[in-house]
Amino acid sequence: MTIVQTLELGKVIGEIEPCDRRYSAAAQTQLDSLTKPIGSLGRLEEIAAQMFSIFKGEIPAPLHRAAYVFAADHGVTDEGVSAYPRQVTAQMVRNFLGGGAAINVLARMHRSELTVVDVGVDAEFEDAPALVRMKICLGSRNMKHEAAMTPEEVSAAIEVGIRLAHASRAKGEHLVAIGEMGIGNTTAASAVTAMLTHRSVAEVTGRGTGLDSEARNRKVNVIRRSLRLHFGEEKTAEPLEVLRCVGGLELAAITGFVLAAAANRIAIVCDGFISTAAAAVAYAIAPNVKDYLFAGHCSEEPGHRYLLHFIGIRPVLNLGMRLGEGTGAVLAMPVIESAVCLFTEMATFSSAGVSGRSKT
Amino acid sequence: MTIVQTLELGKVIGEIEPCDRRYSAAAQTQLDSLTKPIGSLGRLEEIAAQMFSIFKGEIPAPLHRAAYVFAADHGVTDEGVSAYPRQVTAQMVRNFLGGGAAINVLARMHRSELTVVDVGVDAEFEDAPALVRMKICLGSRNMKHEAAMTPEEVSAAIEVGIRLAHASRAKGEHLVAIGEMGIGNTTAASAVTAMLTHRSVAEVTGRGTGLDSEARNRKVNVIRRSLRLHFGEEKTAEPLEVLRCVGGLELAAITGFVLAAAANRIAIVCDGFISTAAAAVAYAIAPNVKDYLFAGHCSEEPGHRYLLHFIGIRPVLNLGMRLGEGTGAVLAMPVIESAVCLFTEMATFSSAGVSGRSKT
Repeated sequence: MTIVQTLELGKVIGEIEPCDRRYSAAAQTQLDSLTKPIGSLGRLEEIAAQMFSIFKGEIPAPLHRAAYVFAADHGVTDEGVSAYPRQVTAQMVRNFLGGGAAINVLARMHRSELTVVDVGVDAEFEDAPALVRMKICLGSRNMKHEAAMTPEEVSAAIEVGIRLAHASRAKGEHLVAIGEMGIGNTTAASAVTAMLTHRSVAEVTGRGTGLDSEARNRKVNVIRRSLRLHFGEEKTAEPLEVLRCVGGLELAAITGFVLAAAANRIAIVCDGFISTAAAAVAYAIAPNVKDYLFAGHCSEEPGHRYLLHFIGIRPVLNLGMRLGEGTGAVLAMPVIESAVCLFTEMATFSSAGVSGRSKT
Repeated sequence: MTIVQTLELGKVIGEIEPCDRRYSAAAQTQLDSLTKPIGSLGRLEEIAAQMFSIFKGEIPAPLHRAAYVFAADHGVTDEGVSAYPRQVTAQMVRNFLGGGAAINVLARMHRSELTVVDVGVDAEFEDAPALVRMKICLGSRNMKHEAAMTPEEVSAAIEVGIRLAHASRAKGEHLVAIGEMGIGNTTAASAVTAMLTHRSVAEVTGRGTGLDSEARNRKVNVIRRSLRLHFGEEKTAEPLEVLRCVGGLELAAITGFVLAAAANRIAIVCDGFISTAAAAVAYAIAPNVKDYLFAGHCSEEPGHRYLLHFIGIRPVLNLGMRLGEGTGAVLAMPVIESAVCLFTEMATFSSAGVSGRSKT
């Protein structure tokens, strides 16, 4: 618990208010007055009610959208746990800055300003408008041999996220997508997921960017050994200690971002397995963050559904994606915005002169 | 088969070309060169490949999008099969023309020009820019006592759809959403679905706009009696005869629209249960239409998933919606367009200088 106490983190956690249930009740009353059969917008009604609650009955229009991609390297790549070499993290960051990656295409199309945060990539970058330099170190340590981060490193990474969420609020952002880039980070996310959800390593570990069966077995063994090293046979630990020992710099930054975004009443859209693992750490520390969280999609990585169940949120999309970068989160934004527009713009039965239900 | 022979329909069916599989193979090669792990865009890759195939390797940009809502009344409403009174069809058409319905909100937001087609509503409407007047008669007949349409009526309704699809092509539309409005039309769609999929009436019949259990049982019985009246105990019939006896004017127009849109190489997004039932009739007549069809979403109506399975298409969205009007189809458009933009705009590994896979 020293991390909580020594940080601004304690203050942020104290500022996260649960959403007032009266707003969701009022939203449902409004939804039921619109010219449609009761409940016929399905999940869109839940989404609209959640947005109404987050913004205390005054959803801003238009919604100011943004996407944040947190990038870092991982020491555990020494163990051959990824289908791609470590330098791809830096190469993909350059691709983000050059506008050619999937997240660039989607952020442009769905009008979400993209920020790329270097929390710990093992390379130096030229200045670029979308780049925020907040490098803590040149990647996390190899979890198989030592904790992925020192207490100072994990604290600093969490604080990167907190500072960016405060800045997001200051810029007037309402709806933010959270993504990540880091070769090796499904290994970290699987380790975090096994600890938080008490599922076996085998259940929560997938093929990442495309491992074959042998390499995936190696990844499972690396995670098993790492968990034994840090948490012994009982495998229980405080969520922040899990994050420190087997997480990563970008995961820690996302945990901080999610906590501070919730404290600032910003609506947060998680992407896939890695960003949801980091959000799950935030939820484990401060369950009220759930009121501000949307799951953009359900990833093909097997651990993702356990995390969604752990937090208790349902994905907006289910398209078999497993790319990361925030792509599934940004792709869910038009659905979330559609839910809000339906809620605020549709006619009511009385305003449109439409008859209500017959007595059946 | 007289309907086919007496119509322009035969010509339209002959013009529907299957998509050339070489385009989907070329699309996959291109997808695999983009800066992302192989296959990591999931369903988006299939969608992009299908669009590439429909447009023979030259997907237009921007995609000119449109939405068509076909409206008609149903004689079977005399049997108390809907939670809402019959006059709601006309009231909702006026709501569409006034801009206050769910489909208006979504069409505005997702830049799809909305056309409301009166194929057979039991009311007269003032002129309005979005309204196309192609009324065949003031609603279909009560299927419990007689065929829903005469051969002349169903032919005329199919031709409405064909003419509109040709006009859509002439306007340069590339991607069209298909919706409907008609109190009583889940009864017609359930009857059509039971016949096409050989499922029991009980399996494919739901609560529509919100029936209680007693009223839903009444609906099931009305459909059972209607199928027995028209098709006897064996329950087999030509698809167009099914459409004529237990379909509806808007369903027939959609069947014609889907066939002629496919003949014109327009990408078609079906909405929910009713529009998919009409598309399934088109598929049963001309299986090549499948290459041009997308399922926008999976409706809560129980029959919808059987229809999707019958055609062999998977829904883009799964949000528990059951509103109709084309809402689920228009909501899927940003996903389809995102798939296309990713396909055409992403950098390749070589252009972005990103390393390929390690040898694992």
